[in-house]
Amino acid sequence: MKLYGFFRSSAAFRVRIALNLKGLAYDLVSLHLRSGQQSKPEFLALNPLGLVPALADGDAVLTQSLAIIEYLDETHPQPPLVPKSPLARARVRALAQAVACDIHPIDNLRVLNYLARELKQDEEAVKRWFNHWISVGFKGIEAALAASTETGKFCHGDSPTLADICLVPQVFNSMRYALDLGPYPTIQRIHKACMALPAFDQAQPSKQPDAEP
Amino acid sequence: MKLYGFFRSSAAFRVRIALNLKGLAYDLVSLHLRSGQQSKPEFLALNPLGLVPALADGDAVLTQSLAIIEYLDETHPQPPLVPKSPLARARVRALAQAVACDIHPIDNLRVLNYLARELKQDEEAVKRWFNHWISVGFKGIEAALAASTETGKFCHGDSPTLADICLVPQVFNSMRYALDLGPYPTIQRIHKACMALPAFDQAQPSKQPDAEP
Repeated sequence: MKLYGFFRSSAAFRVRIALNLKGLAYDLVSLHLRSGQQSKPEFLALNPLGLVPALADGDAVLTQSLAIIEYLDETHPQPPLVPKSPLARARVRALAQAVACDIHPIDNLRVLNYLARELKQDEEAVKRWFNHWISVGFKGIEAALAASTETGKFCHGDSPTLADICLVPQVFNSMRYALDLGPYPTIQRIHKACMALPAFDQAQPSKQPDAEP
Repeated sequence: MKLYGFFRSSAAFRVRIALNLKGLAYDLVSLHLRSGQQSKPEFLALNPLGLVPALADGDAVLTQSLAIIEYLDETHPQPPLVPKSPLARARVRALAQAVACDIHPIDNLRVLNYLARELKQDEEAVKRWFNHWISVGFKGIEAALAASTETGKFCHGDSPTLADICLVPQVFNSMRYALDLGPYPTIQRIHKACMALPAFDQAQPSKQPDAEP
């Protein structure tokens, strides 16, 4: 398999964690997002959406991190990243989507660029924007995790799932502008449990071959 | 089942289409988003994330439109909204997420409110923002649909899937500031095919009991 990614992309980070948890080896094709390599014709021919990550598995090219991870889970079932029962699956997916739909897209690089370039917002305003959407999202996720008996060592029970795979890269993002994580003790606890696992630890941005200081 | 929604919420619109396609009856609890009913303690007790839609099925409360729709598909398999093969499932989910992760969250009401209230952007700037993200997303989705032999009468083959369920409400959103859909002929064609189906037609905002002029 071939992963089109970038060390700092948190959606690519999710897929790296999933590949590691499944024990699947892959070749990395690094696309430098800040210099716009994801918008070059060669990559658009593979992924017309012009976003990383994309995963090539044989002749097929898959896009969108959550779709890729569910594909990996369906084609390589062990260890499972989504539980078996429909209600549990819905809970794990909802927690994952609370990050992937409700926080991350609003704080994505292209949105921050639009704020700075088109709306002439200064660094302080971009920082407030960035941390605002994480705070709103983490407040809800913390409450949802703290309120449920389904929450275990990880977001759902005692083994990592798609929910943790989305949460951890978002916690990494929260460090960009040093968001205070004090109000989110359950998120912090789960983040720590995840990072104790080599699959999460080895997937972090600073440990990738294309990492920059 | 009980759907917590709002006629104008496009994420609730998705769930209404899915319920209609499955032939499932539901009671509507309307939460007026502009007056902030989704942030009241009664609703936060059900959904700590404070977002619609939420679906109550017996004692369980499910959140996040895509997670809800996959739950409905797993518990009421006919007609299927996600295909059988892992590759096809990944394609349908990726198209759905190209709307649900890459367009809709950035144009959500709370984001538009932040632009207007915190960043003091005028109506014209909000309109440009709104249409910019739909254009970027639709450009990629149009290219992905036009390039694939899997695209049929609908986004994937000749029956509606999760991908169409996400696409149609986004096309409705594009009408808010009269985005020119000329560059997206495949999206227009599929939208028309969907709206010819009662399940889509009856789910549209203007036909809901809580619709406002």
